[in-house]
Amino acid sequence: MIYTPFNALSQTPRPWGEKCGVFAVWGAADPARLTFAGLLALQHRGQESAGIAVTDGRSLMRHVDMGLVSHIFDHDCIRTLDGHANSRAGFAGRLGGGIGHNRYSTTGSSRVENAQPFIGRSRAGEIALAHNGNLVNALELRRRLEDAGHTFHSSSDTEAILQLIAAHAGPGSPDPVADALRELRGAFSLVMLHNDRIEVARDPWGWRPLVIGETEDGALIAASETIALDIIGARFVREVEPGEIVTLSDAGVESRRFAPPAEPRAHCVFEHVYFASPASKVFGQTVQTVRERLGERLAKESHVPADCVLPMPDSGRSAATGYARASGVPYREGIIPNRYVGRTFIKPSTEERVQAVRLKLNIVEDVVRGNRVVVVDDSVVRGTTTRAKMDQLRAAGAKEIHLRISCPPIRHPCFFGVDFAEPTQLIAAGREVEQIRKLLGVDTLHYLSLEGMLDVVQTASLPREHYCTACYSGKYPIDVARAAAGAVSGKC
Amino acid sequence: MIYTPFNALSQTPRPWGEKCGVFAVWGAADPARLTFAGLLALQHRGQESAGIAVTDGRSLMRHVDMGLVSHIFDHDCIRTLDGHANSRAGFAGRLGGGIGHNRYSTTGSSRVENAQPFIGRSRAGEIALAHNGNLVNALELRRRLEDAGHTFHSSSDTEAILQLIAAHAGPGSPDPVADALRELRGAFSLVMLHNDRIEVARDPWGWRPLVIGETEDGALIAASETIALDIIGARFVREVEPGEIVTLSDAGVESRRFAPPAEPRAHCVFEHVYFASPASKVFGQTVQTVRERLGERLAKESHVPADCVLPMPDSGRSAATGYARASGVPYREGIIPNRYVGRTFIKPSTEERVQAVRLKLNIVEDVVRGNRVVVVDDSVVRGTTTRAKMDQLRAAGAKEIHLRISCPPIRHPCFFGVDFAEPTQLIAAGREVEQIRKLLGVDTLHYLSLEGMLDVVQTASLPREHYCTACYSGKYPIDVARAAAGAVSGKC
Amino acid sequence: MIYTPFNALSQTPRPWGEKCGVFAVWGAADPARLTFAGLLALQHRGQESAGIAVTDGRSLMRHVDMGLVSHIFDHDCIRTLDGHANSRAGFAGRLGGGIGHNRYSTTGSSRVENAQPFIGRSRAGEIALAHNGNLVNALELRRRLEDAGHTFHSSSDTEAILQLIAAHAGPGSPDPVADALRELRGAFSLVMLHNDRIEVARDPWGWRPLVIGETEDGALIAASETIALDIIGARFVREVEPGEIVTLSDAGVESRRFAPPAEPRAHCVFEHVYFASPASKVFGQTVQTVRERLGERLAKESHVPADCVLPMPDSGRSAATGYARASGVPYREGIIPNRYVGRTFIKPSTEERVQAVRLKLNIVEDVVRGNRVVVVDDSVVRGTTTRAKMDQLRAAGAKEIHLRISCPPIRHPCFFGVDFAEPTQLIAAGREVEQIRKLLGVDTLHYLSLEGMLDVVQTASLPREHYCTACYSGKYPIDVARAAAGAVSGKC
Amino acid sequence: MIYTPFNALSQTPRPWGEKCGVFAVWGAADPARLTFAGLLALQHRGQESAGIAVTDGRSLMRHVDMGLVSHIFDHDCIRTLDGHANSRAGFAGRLGGGIGHNRYSTTGSSRVENAQPFIGRSRAGEIALAHNGNLVNALELRRRLEDAGHTFHSSSDTEAILQLIAAHAGPGSPDPVADALRELRGAFSLVMLHNDRIEVARDPWGWRPLVIGETEDGALIAASETIALDIIGARFVREVEPGEIVTLSDAGVESRRFAPPAEPRAHCVFEHVYFASPASKVFGQTVQTVRERLGERLAKESHVPADCVLPMPDSGRSAATGYARASGVPYREGIIPNRYVGRTFIKPSTEERVQAVRLKLNIVEDVVRGNRVVVVDDSVVRGTTTRAKMDQLRAAGAKEIHLRISCPPIRHPCFFGVDFAEPTQLIAAGREVEQIRKLLGVDTLHYLSLEGMLDVVQTASLPREHYCTACYSGKYPIDVARAAAGAVSGKC
Repeated sequence: MIYTPFNALSQTPRPWGEKCGVFAVWGAADPARLTFAGLLALQHRGQESAGIAVTDGRSLMRHVDMGLVSHIFDHDCIRTLDGHANSRAGFAGRLGGGIGHNRYSTTGSSRVENAQPFIGRSRAGEIALAHNGNLVNALELRRRLEDAGHTFHSSSDTEAILQLIAAHAGPGSPDPVADALRELRGAFSLVMLHNDRIEVARDPWGWRPLVIGETEDGALIAASETIALDIIGARFVREVEPGEIVTLSDAGVESRRFAPPAEPRAHCVFEHVYFASPASKVFGQTVQTVRERLGERLAKESHVPADCVLPMPDSGRSAATGYARASGVPYREGIIPNRYVGRTFIKPSTEERVQAVRLKLNIVEDVVRGNRVVVVDDSVVRGTTTRAKMDQLRAAGAKEIHLRISCPPIRHPCFFGVDFAEPTQLIAAGREVEQIRKLLGVDTLHYLSLEGMLDVVQTASLPREHYCTACYSGKYPIDVARAAAGAVSGKC
Repeated sequence: MIYTPFNALSQTPRPWGEKCGVFAVWGAADPARLTFAGLLALQHRGQESAGIAVTDGRSLMRHVDMGLVSHIFDHDCIRTLDGHANSRAGFAGRLGGGIGHNRYSTTGSSRVENAQPFIGRSRAGEIALAHNGNLVNALELRRRLEDAGHTFHSSSDTEAILQLIAAHAGPGSPDPVADALRELRGAFSLVMLHNDRIEVARDPWGWRPLVIGETEDGALIAASETIALDIIGARFVREVEPGEIVTLSDAGVESRRFAPPAEPRAHCVFEHVYFASPASKVFGQTVQTVRERLGERLAKESHVPADCVLPMPDSGRSAATGYARASGVPYREGIIPNRYVGRTFIKPSTEERVQAVRLKLNIVEDVVRGNRVVVVDDSVVRGTTTRAKMDQLRAAGAKEIHLRISCPPIRHPCFFGVDFAEPTQLIAAGREVEQIRKLLGVDTLHYLSLEGMLDVVQTASLPREHYCTACYSGKYPIDVARAAAGAVSGKC
Repeated sequence: MIYTPFNALSQTPRPWGEKCGVFAVWGAADPARLTFAGLLALQHRGQESAGIAVTDGRSLMRHVDMGLVSHIFDHDCIRTLDGHANSRAGFAGRLGGGIGHNRYSTTGSSRVENAQPFIGRSRAGEIALAHNGNLVNALELRRRLEDAGHTFHSSSDTEAILQLIAAHAGPGSPDPVADALRELRGAFSLVMLHNDRIEVARDPWGWRPLVIGETEDGALIAASETIALDIIGARFVREVEPGEIVTLSDAGVESRRFAPPAEPRAHCVFEHVYFASPASKVFGQTVQTVRERLGERLAKESHVPADCVLPMPDSGRSAATGYARASGVPYREGIIPNRYVGRTFIKPSTEERVQAVRLKLNIVEDVVRGNRVVVVDDSVVRGTTTRAKMDQLRAAGAKEIHLRISCPPIRHPCFFGVDFAEPTQLIAAGREVEQIRKLLGVDTLHYLSLEGMLDVVQTASLPREHYCTACYSGKYPIDVARAAAGAVSGKC
Repeated sequence: MIYTPFNALSQTPRPWGEKCGVFAVWGAADPARLTFAGLLALQHRGQESAGIAVTDGRSLMRHVDMGLVSHIFDHDCIRTLDGHANSRAGFAGRLGGGIGHNRYSTTGSSRVENAQPFIGRSRAGEIALAHNGNLVNALELRRRLEDAGHTFHSSSDTEAILQLIAAHAGPGSPDPVADALRELRGAFSLVMLHNDRIEVARDPWGWRPLVIGETEDGALIAASETIALDIIGARFVREVEPGEIVTLSDAGVESRRFAPPAEPRAHCVFEHVYFASPASKVFGQTVQTVRERLGERLAKESHVPADCVLPMPDSGRSAATGYARASGVPYREGIIPNRYVGRTFIKPSTEERVQAVRLKLNIVEDVVRGNRVVVVDDSVVRGTTTRAKMDQLRAAGAKEIHLRISCPPIRHPCFFGVDFAEPTQLIAAGREVEQIRKLLGVDTLHYLSLEGMLDVVQTASLPREHYCTACYSGKYPIDVARAAAGAVSGKC
């Protein structure tokens, strides 16, 4: 809990909202418990901190902490939150509401100040806000608000959004939330808890997913992915539209627009490739089947004679089954993960004798020795652990190693909510595939083509131009010059 | 870390600053380490949370947490903070600065949001603020700021002060800090860390103590009590004057006024009676000797033939030695505290068999049996544990129990930084001494008279009218009507 | 750390040694560090407690605790143990030795008294002992030793073995270890650390695996599975023979017999089916490839027209690939595990709304809906979670569910180191397959035949009669009448 | 939880029983809860580990851990233990029994193996044993038992006693407990829990106290000090006699002798001087009043003109009041302890700037400056912290410092249960008082004379020759040659 320097962070708005999960429920007897379950389902979107806020109709209460959802919330904690929601000072017997958030961060420092949901009280009332995404104009907004006399207590985009809403509120202001959202540039899927309703909103580009659902009991749900609906037995109703604000309240579901959808949209293709759960439906398609088809396409683009297809566990499994099916090469399990290693201390200090990668993965020598193996993975970011794994396969006797990646090379930073390494550390930045192949020490290397990827992910209702592929192509849907300049060391 | 309802708290500004300790140092190679030592010395002023903020000349860093100073800060944590202070991005080799805070609260809920120092960034720059005291117009200030578009993220007075400074800052504003402090009504001893200086300030009434010191190495110190100077080997320079802002910087000590001293002042007499460390010098006098003289005066006012004087450990020790000396009755130790009990769970569930008070105190029967004992304590607030102790003495065979209290009956709430129980729970509220005597089950009960107390605490340079005695007399130095109205259940 | 009743346990020797992993190293500069890595690799064999003991040539030191290896041992702890081993009071510059243990237990109570390695000092010298297996005559041995004046401080078999060795030691006793081991009936793979050597031993039936390896630096290793050799880069030398004691010392590897190998052996077939790591080589064969062939055989025995083969993650993956290959039905991932759920509290209290199984597994509806699915798993013990998973598949729209299990029905308790549920709770105990099928709610259910399983696991050098199949067949290799009688509720 | 070398400890039996507290109760509905309260009261006798064992009439259960009683036992833990005691498998409605233990140790390493009560099962039945004291022939006993085939799993004397009882048990052995106790040489106050009774015993010399009490409900109690009776409202019945075994059971209190009382006894005078609680009655006298009289005698032996008497908190308080009374010099509080410092990290690393002693104690300068002060403390062991405190007084302006110690110089190791520093580190070992005075930097130094001390502690029924004064006089009541030889570095 040592905080990183405060000022440096406010000068360089780090994308704290990146790779996060949000959840909201209105009209349930146990909103905290449902939110807890929803956050468990969304844990893959962020493991650094988590939080839940609830309302009793008159005041908000929250609990946030660093760590995994299952460690932060125990029975007493959930009961206290649900108890607050059910004290119903203002509800007169109606059911309660709550929101939750998982946050991912790659920075070493823990910042409980930045944990969400964030609560603010202003002339716009009391609002708890949780945010998945990243703004490219956050620093400008903060500076403008500071010049107007506002004070900031954290470095998060989320606080800036709350203060912007307050700035827009006041006499004669019919919709300060919409006014504020219109000023945001970048990716945001938001859930906002008021004392009498929940508002959820999605940026006009639709970068991050956000869906609406409903339980059998009539509780209204919003969540980053459909898997959070499944876990609580809620049915999928629809996606929140780009540029739309949806209100969940005792009056049911209401919709308004703060902006028209961007033309074209900018749905993050990396949600399909890597980030979302395979069991979720994202941008209208099931992630698992998309990944299988990416694998099939990959096989067609890069066939090579081989003895077996090995998935990199667990990230390459979906694509590997598709690859195997399309290529006719047998699918086998040859790389066995050690699920118990966790974050053990041994790695740095004993690299020579006990290679860290050996602790995480074991090779089944019988499957590998003397064989030509195709290894399928979903992406390569820095390449350091990939190289170690390839060496391990070679040491176990692989005759040929053919590495197949189910997306194109990642060469550009993301400013919209995925925190890759710094551009200088991306193995594919400024390198040709052949150079990367040599660095990774494999016999052949093939990345799925951008065309191939887009052929797979497009549908009749969602043409390929509606996907953001900036990390592969460098073509950003909106101007990111200031964001890029502000980012120390080109950090996105 | 379950947070109490957010809204309820902002409607009812609880005196979060009450019974706190503050510390500041400028110009030291190890500001975090010195602040840590200073906070250890001031731990008696607050045990709920603690925090330290430091600057490297360009940005602030802080570490705060719930709990005791010795648990919150370990070697690595202090080293990181000192490392930041010494990275000296902006210092060019000069020495660093830091501030710290201990907070006391009687509420059961822990609110890490309210932990201090509080950091805010605005057009007034980056400021870390720590606060001892309580404002009576905090709610008005917050409402006014909210109406102007400000957003609050906590329920603390401290955040309101930071935002007020930001509101006063801006083009053409020569001294926003002084402008802001002039608007505060109530008790405050503040330390503010900027990136290039520390400012410390004290309200015009001088409710809470605040002193300036200097180490042999030339580091400049500010602290709630002189004991924090002693612990780091610093010499006492002077008190901060009521209405004064003192700046500690590389330029040395500078002073300005934001307001004239109030006439009369309102120094809290309870600092002498109970709150400050006996080893500190407060309002110009050593607390220990004041307490001895309170005991002497008490003996003169209430002499009774007795076999021994027993101090209530540890609170009554100083007064009891004075009482014994003046009365000629032998001083003996007959009530032995158990230092290891801590907060053990056994109390609520086994009241019948194992009385909780027995776990905390043991009576030396040989000292008590058949004897007329005078028990001296510094104050009685609720009276519940006092009654249990008196019963214990009786059960151990005390022939007569004469309870002597070294201050008058506490009958009124404090709005200036001491969090007594609710007025309805003060045993002396609306009761005559004889009624209290019966409730406590003692043979005689005597409280020191208000006159007697003031005779003892006044000095040539500090006449009696400069003390606030509101909790005894009900005469408040400033209008507290709105504060009292805002306080749910009359809670101060 | 509440201990279960002491006496009850010593009357009913629970199989504390069951499902454990052991590791030993002699002649390394960092024996604790290597043992730590070995225990990480063997963590799947036991997650309840772990421990490491080392020698400096003159005295033993150990560290044991409840929990996972990666939580119990930190850098300081390993350094302290390695420091002890390298203080070399008695080594005069030679290299150190150590042993380690992982323990599994299905009982709710944690018993740090029973954590291993166990250390005893007697006329046999100082010995640290770690044990994988279970004795059927432990209670008789304890009673006999108690009658002779011995005192027991735990309920573990391991303490009984240590005391038995001491009882056999004494003047004129050339090999008390061999004498003691000859008296043990049941399964045991042991590692024993003396101050000048390590002895490892395996019961005459060879129930549990135990292998010898060697690092490049010449350190000698013993471990439950070859995966522990791989993780530290050691090469496999050979298995420890049934009835053999192998000594690892500065003199190298020495061998002696305490008993001839049993005819036939009784290698636990369940190691291949379920227990060992797929990356290990056990009883001469790689587990992963054995499981693939079990799946192939299963496909041949139970073909059914279907749209896809779904592995139950992670237990059914190996067999499912074999099944898919042999059947020609496409292999797909349709059941997605949630790796973050862990042991969360929500399960018991909200079964109605949030089914626990939903928290652990998510179904990919696109893969399942309208399809005939073959689900492959390695075993069914109680059947409760299997039923819930089948319901989940049905709810996701599976048209037909064909459950395939890659071993025969488990109908009998194990007395040799695998702690199944109580016989009454085994779903297959006393039930025909058709009855089980109805209980599980699937369209067809097929268990691999005993014949089919033995066809797969047998080799030229290891005929089928050398496998223990008691849990399937009820034919125990040795008399277990007394063990069964002593076991409360038939607990093995 | 790193264990120190096992072997080294068994060769050199460290006095693990030293400075401990024991408690026992029979015939209570909540034996664990009463034992918990008793251990809280006895916490001053040992803070390293604690444990409670209970019986349900058929089996024992225990809970032990490192740390303070209030941290080790929570509500659930006590309830589980009481629940076990009340399950009454064998009681048929009778009330339960339990014992408890606090252990003190000065060694840095924590050894949960040695935590008491210790449980053993043998032909003598199941016994839980807790022990206060130290044996001088433990190593001989262990070696003899090892030669007879016994195995030891810890280095504690307690395990040796349990095994000795087992060795004496067997056919034709009417009283193995008495037989075993007769073989022990040294100090022991024992409580033993059987499934149908409790036995408590005290060595023939009566080194350590041990008393019997009874609650109003008729529960029978044994405890190290009377303060443990007071805390649960039990009345004092009598002391356990030296050489006596007292049985507490459903049949009430029964007594037998295992040996005649030693002539003379060897009651530890240091219990009165330092170790016991001032509120306890020990060896027939109240500790508090004994200490007051030691202070009076000290005043008579060493009068010096002075301005005030300052107690060293908290150890010197009792003697200081006696000193002040007898000398007529005013008693004042001038040294103020900081109760919150605890074990903070800052000490070693910043000795130069922030002296550790300043963190622990603050001097009231007003009381000290320009004055001749008498400082009274109960003992000086190493003298290092005393020197620092004297320097602090001098720095605060003391004109003269007269140090008065209420016992003679400690010059010899204790082998009977008090773990002083090593003899070489005792400041008084081999030094004259004048040399010590110079080392401590005081104007005068006076230790109470041995004669004076014995005059105070002797009574009509307990003449002075019945006290052990070995640490002062070097005259050991029994031969300690072998113990002294076995002790590495002369460690007792």
